[in-house]
Parts: sequence; C-alpha cells; structure tokens
Amino acid sequence: MDMRKAALEKLRALGKYVADKLQRGEEPVLEIPVRSLSNTIWDEKAGILRLGSQKSRRRLLDRSSVRAYAQTLYLAHIIAKAIEEGDYPTIRDLYYAAKHTITWRDPVTNRRIAENSFEEQSESDSIIQDIEVMLGILREQMGIMADAKGKIVGNMVIESKGHRLNLAEFGVGAYAIPPNADDINILKVEADYVLVIEKDAVFNRLNNEEFWKKHNCIIVTGKGQPDRGTRRMVRRLWEEFGLPVYVLADADPYGFYIYSVYKCGSISLSYESERLAVPEAKFIGVYPSDIYRYKIPKNFIIKATERDLKRARELLNYPWFANSKLWRRELELFLKKKEKVEIEAFSGFGLKFLTEKYIPKKIKMFGSD
Amino acid sequence: MDMRKAALEKLRALGKYVADKLQRGEEPVLEIPVRSLSNTIWDEKAGILRLGSQKSRRRLLDRSSVRAYAQTLYLAHIIAKAIEEGDYPTIRDLYYAAKHTITWRDPVTNRRIAENSFEEQSESDSIIQDIEVMLGILREQMGIMADAKGKIVGNMVIESKGHRLNLAEFGVGAYAIPPNADDINILKVEADYVLVIEKDAVFNRLNNEEFWKKHNCIIVTGKGQPDRGTRRMVRRLWEEFGLPVYVLADADPYGFYIYSVYKCGSISLSYESERLAVPEAKFIGVYPSDIYRYKIPKNFIIKATERDLKRARELLNYPWFANSKLWRRELELFLKKKEKVEIEAFSGFGLKFLTEKYIPKKIKMFGSD
Repeated sequence: MDMRKAALEKLRALGKYVADKLQRGEEPVLEIPVRSLSNTIWDEKAGILRLGSQKSRRRLLDRSSVRAYAQTLYLAHIIAKAIEEGDYPTIRDLYYAAKHTITWRDPVTNRRIAENSFEEQSESDSIIQDIEVMLGILREQMGIMADAKGKIVGNMVIESKGHRLNLAEFGVGAYAIPPNADDINILKVEADYVLVIEKDAVFNRLNNEEFWKKHNCIIVTGKGQPDRGTRRMVRRLWEEFGLPVYVLADADPYGFYIYSVYKCGSISLSYESERLAVPEAKFIGVYPSDIYRYKIPKNFIIKATERDLKRARELLNYPWFANSKLWRRELELFLKKKEKVEIEAFSGFGLKFLTEKYIPKKIKMFGSD
Repeated sequence: MDMRKAALEKLRALGKYVADKLQRGEEPVLEIPVRSLSNTIWDEKAGILRLGSQKSRRRLLDRSSVRAYAQTLYLAHIIAKAIEEGDYPTIRDLYYAAKHTITWRDPVTNRRIAENSFEEQSESDSIIQDIEVMLGILREQMGIMADAKGKIVGNMVIESKGHRLNLAEFGVGAYAIPPNADDINILKVEADYVLVIEKDAVFNRLNNEEFWKKHNCIIVTGKGQPDRGTRRMVRRLWEEFGLPVYVLADADPYGFYIYSVYKCGSISLSYESERLAVPEAKFIGVYPSDIYRYKIPKNFIIKATERDLKRARELLNYPWFANSKLWRRELELFLKKKEKVEIEAFSGFGLKFLTEKYIPKKIKMFGSD
C-alpha cells in the first residue's frame, strides 16, 4: 500500500525530529492540534465541521505532559513497526501492545515506583487520534483496524488487491465495506444517486426486492451511527462521481443526528470531516411533519422520551440545523408534538408503500432542488 | 425462490384447514409446539438443544386464547400476501402491517370497545415464531428480513441470483452474509477449516493480513452473538462440506456463551438448532487456563464482574458444559480466579503472536483429536 508507506515516512520523520533535537541538546516539543469542542468550528461555506487552529505544546521536560509525550512516541513507534512488518493491528491490539509496567527507584525517597504506560484503552485511543492530527495522517492510512459495519450494493465496479467486484452481482448478499474505504479503487459507477439507509434490516429488504436495480441507485447502510469506513465510501461516491446522497432514517433525534454525521461530520472526529462528510447530503425522511402529512395512524406513533427531547434541543443549537428554516420548523414541531415514528410505520399502508411511494416521491422532490 | 413457494403452500394449507373446519361447523384448533425452557431438551446424542414434544392448543372458541388465535391467522395472511407479491418485509414491517385498532360494541353493556391487534413488536415477533414451529417453516424460508451481521471470506465460490462470487477475491472487503444463508448456493469450498471470530475488528485484521490464504481456511465473524444467517452459513460449511469449525472468543462467559450458541443452539431458538448448530464446533480459546499457561501479564487481566460470575455458574448448569471434563475445569478455574482476558491481550507478546503462534497451535492441538 502506498498510503501506508507515506504514513510510515511521516512516523519516521517524527522520530527523526525528536532524535535530532535531543542530539543537539534542544527540547523536542510536539505541537498537537487540540481536539476539543472549543477548537471545533463550523465552516459555513464548506458546510462541515472542522478542527480549528489551536495547538497544544506537548513537552518532554514538563511534569504535566511527559506521560502523554512518552505515550505518543511509544505508540508511534509500535505503529511504525506494524507497518514495516505488514501487520494490521486493531486499536485494541495497539493498547495491549503498548501497555506495560515501568518500575524505577525514586531518586529522592529511594522507593520503588511502578507505573503503567497506559491504564485504559481510552487513553491509547486518544493518543492515536493525537498522532492522526499531529502528523495529518489517518488511522486508516496507517492500516489500523476497527469495527466496520457498512454494507453496499448497486451498479458499481470496484477493485481491491487486483480483484474486480461488480456490486450489482451480489444477489441476496452485500459487499461489506472495509475499515479503510480508500483501500478500494472505484472503477465505475452507473447510478443516479446513493440511498443511505439507517437500518440494516431495511437495507436487507431493499436489497432482496432489488430496489437499487429498479431505481438505478446505490444502497448503503452504516447500521445506525456509521463507522468511518462507511462514511468515507459515501463521501467518495459523492465527491468522485458526483452522486447525490439521500439519507433515510427514523423520525427521531437519533435518526436526525445520524443524518447530521453523514452530512457535516461529528464533533469528536471534526479533523476527519473533510474526508468523510457530504455537505450536500439530503434527508428524505422520515420528518416529524411526515407523521401528520401522511396521517400516520395514532397507534404507530411513539411518545418521545425526555432524552429524545433533550437531544432535539441540542440539535437546534447546531448551526447546520439552526440555520435551516426547514430544520428549525421540523425540530420545533417535534418538540411541540413530542412524537416520533419509525421508518417501518409506513408498512401500515401496505408493504409496498415505502419503496414504491414514499422514497421515490421524496427523492423526486429533492432531485428538483 | 422455491423455498418461498413451499412456505406459501403451508400458509395456504393453514388457511384452508381453518376455513374447511368452520364450514363444517367444527372448531379449527391450532396445535402449536411450546417454545419454553420446560419444553427445551438437551439431545445428548445429537449434541444440540431441541424443542420437546409439548404442544399447546390455541382455540378460537376460548376467551384466553382467541386473541393469539386471531393474531396468528392475521400474520399468516399478511406473510402469505407478501410472498405472493414478492415483498421481503422485516419483522418490524410485519408488526406495523398487522397493527390496527378494532372497535366494536359490547353486546351486553352496549359500550364501544377499542382494542389493538398488537400492542408491541415483541407480541408479533412471538407469533411469527409460533407460525414457524407450527408449520415447520422458518422465517428465512418465508423471506422475512432481519438484521444480518455476518461477514465471510476464504477459498469458496458461491452463487446467488445467477451470479457467481469467489470469496477469495474480496481484497480488503468481505462478503456480507444475507439473513437467509440458504438463498445462496455454495458451489465450491477448498479450505481446511472454518475459523469463527467473535470480534469484527479482529476479523478485519485477519482479513487484511490474509490469514485465510496463508492457513487455507474460511474466516467468519458474527459480531458477538451471531444472527441466524451467520450460524446457518457456518452450519452449512460443516454439514455440506465437512469442514471442522473453530471458535475464537474472549476468555469470559460472554465469549463462552457465543461458542455455545454456535455449537448447540440457544434456548429461545431451540426449534432451529437442527438447522443452525454445529455440535462438533471446537473452542480454540481464549480459555481461562490460557491466562496462566501463557502467563498473560497481570495488568492485561480484567477482574470478572458479578454478572460474569453469575453467567459462568449458569453455564455450568448447561449439560454440554457440565458433561465436559475440560469445561467443568475451565469454568471452575474462572470462578475461582475471577479473572478474564480479551483475545487482543496476546498482542502484548507482539502483534504476530495471535496469528502466527496462538491460533495455529490451538488448531493443531484440536485437529489431532
């Protein structure tokens, strides 16, 4: 993988920088972009969340940061070695590979002290993210594995490790998207749009019914909150092939938030938005107003929980919701009515209603934007 | 699908039985095998859990069962119609399709009464299972969709809807197993064994490192507790192609239980064991004794929770654990030491330890059984 080689170069450059500085008797300070809410900015023009310009100085000769300093260099070393040896560790593998106990004698008290290099996986996960933002290389480029939940089918041809796969020839199965969607070459796409489906079971149904064939589209699911691989795949179809992206999710704040992550990115991964977000993604429903527009039967409607309402109020604070007249109206309607529905509620109008009426109608509406 | 046609025949036969009886003025009683723990039996010879012979009589002319009776016929009708019309509803679609409010006037009090056909999805899910056991047809055969989490790669060729797929040509991706693995034809398998991996991230790692190619095996993950499609796929590789099946999971009761489900079936789906279980499946670890045999460093070991201990005691009551000297010893060791580890802990011995030492050694041990 050329990508992994480039990542290895950057990891080596980091090591060289530190070694050179030390040999010259200077302090090798690490400058690391801050991954916090305060340094996450809403780039209105691009329509995505971005990391701001704040940086923290991680110092070797400073009691408060030396632990994180050592952790950073140690993990960078382990990752570089994994690349050299052709290993593809998971983030949890890296935690265990980096975890050990260091013992030393305190020069003042002469007592033996034992300290763990890492206490918990959250600590090593966070350092991996620091390495990503500091070096401008992503976990995926370093070949670090994580869970990958995405599935995709439709009229497109991909290539991986010299093999071609036509994603229109998967029958009842699907292509499981790898953790790093950039490891794939997309050779050809012949489709009108991408339909992102929140739920796996709904995806399976649309696949069995060959919705993608009848409507000449690509269907994707990230099974709820999508992983990075799934988001990257959707982004590439939009960016490289110009396909419009439509998101189908439940009419509840969890569904709206999933849409928001596909569209603008997430706060915790704002440094990845540029690679993962699809600012032109459209939500085709289910909208709160659809509950009343389609006269969803009363006994299909679910009462919103306190958590739903809290989440909806949070969404109203996100600029990409707050700056949209449509979304302000929808979220306020939700907060007023305190009611939600699932995608599958449309099956009350007959099993074909969702696929033959609702989705095509909504896409036509947005398509004429 | 011929399978769906056969299912449709059985659903129609049910309708005909009820109609004929009613026309003759007789009561059309439904005899439904009982899906409870008391009717789940351990078939020691076959090495699987089975449904016993207890049946309940669901009556139309009985106040206590008429609601379930009507639900059963109504859902059977909706499923039959879905098959006729080529729809593939999810279990949740069926819930909404079947849910409505019936109102009538009480002949005694003359008051209007309103009642829902189904209150919650758990009710319709349970009735679908009743239909499965009553008619001896499975949800999958009826084309009912559910979540499908499984992934698979390795030296095998499958066919679906007229397309061939070589699962050795998936590169960094994988084949997502459909909800009904019987919808696939397995044309060719050239592998020595099936390795079932509990964790998705570990599967992705082994796939990237081409473990299946180096060791000539099929690798599968069901992402924790496996769905029916994944279990069926593994079962078919064992049953139809004679491949040994090895399960790799964490050294904790959750991991042991996952193994137990692949091997013997689950209590709630005991009527499916014959189709899903692999009684000859072997657990290659991580065993509690491996923690000490491999001298896993102290700070990689996790303290067992009260829930872990309770679960382990439950497992000791399952005959397939209790009748095994090896498992009694392992579970007792776990209960004594109260310690667990994750698969990834082996990465503390170097990133290649799991794939180059642990797994091959364990498989060799069991292979000589």
